[in-house]
Amino acid sequence: MKALKEKILKEGVAIGTEIVKVDHFLNHRLDVKFLEEIGEEFKKRFEGEEINKILTVEASGIAVACLAAPYFDYAPVVFAKKAAPNTMTEGFYVAEAKSFTKGTVSLLRVSERFLEKDDKVLIIDDFLAHGQASLALADLVGQAGGEVVGVGAVIEKGFQGGSERLRAKGYKVESLAVIDQIIDGRIIFK
Amino acid sequence: MKALKEKILKEGVAIGTEIVKVDHFLNHRLDVKFLEEIGEEFKKRFEGEEINKILTVEASGIAVACLAAPYFDYAPVVFAKKAAPNTMTEGFYVAEAKSFTKGTVSLLRVSERFLEKDDKVLIIDDFLAHGQASLALADLVGQAGGEVVGVGAVIEKGFQGGSERLRAKGYKVESLAVIDQIIDGRIIFK
Repeated sequence: MKALKEKILKEGVAIGTEIVKVDHFLNHRLDVKFLEEIGEEFKKRFEGEEINKILTVEASGIAVACLAAPYFDYAPVVFAKKAAPNTMTEGFYVAEAKSFTKGTVSLLRVSERFLEKDDKVLIIDDFLAHGQASLALADLVGQAGGEVVGVGAVIEKGFQGGSERLRAKGYKVESLAVIDQIIDGRIIFK
Repeated sequence: MKALKEKILKEGVAIGTEIVKVDHFLNHRLDVKFLEEIGEEFKKRFEGEEINKILTVEASGIAVACLAAPYFDYAPVVFAKKAAPNTMTEGFYVAEAKSFTKGTVSLLRVSERFLEKDDKVLIIDDFLAHGQASLALADLVGQAGGEVVGVGAVIEKGFQGGSERLRAKGYKVESLAVIDQIIDGRIIFK
């Protein structure tokens, strides 16, 4: 997606060899108009697929998923939670996701009420890095007996192998911008 | 907002005397079409006000704020973070927010780059309870020298005094549904 790559180059900040900060439009300050364009692009990438639910993970995935939903006939968005809130009294599906960037392991949870065996799920996230979050989300869908129709990421760090891991499991992966390398503060796309 | 009250009665679950679970459309599973209606209602409530930024807090506020933004000429949405991410290397404004529901104290942070002295800010959140989160967000705006134009909440727990605390500080508060009491699993609106 050309406009996205241009925006990353204009507003993004490369840190070291592994981190791209895009908090000007995607992770902290949100450019809602642009996120609508991203949603529309996801629709093109998954055109013709039957999708009745969008699954993401808090917090940065929520905006992307919500602004994509209108392009998928307002499919309900479900976001996995990283902590068990005190109002989450019923059963939930749980899967472990390691974040290499943050050096942490999160337990992702979704209420059993919100994933079903007939679900055709599009997984959406802001970043695809090592693929751990998407794999955990796919695991949750599997626990419910649903089907993962595809995985959509706004930005993929291609050098961290996430899309290969997901494709090896048979999932269709669409990343709107794939970063090949980060060198000396420069972002190089594939 | 009549449709909201009906939805809360239909889909919400009252727990004890203080908690309303609305995770079927607002806090876990997101009804994006309905959140658009909520955004439009906020526009009506703050009609005529000059607003150039929407401020909320992760995670549940993000969807509400993003789906309101189109009704406010796509004002940028900024969400305060509850943890300092490792990519947040620059300066940030910070304010303390106590959650009575969760029994925790969070430090809310916004990068200094995303709040400015000319900002006219609408604070948006899913719930208004004791008002601690909104007061902390208003504090962040004040640190930047900006102005809080108003505070909009989807659901107010009127018995917890949040709106009184905010109005005592001079802020305009608009809650789309105000719960007066929760008794024996019944939700009673004001």
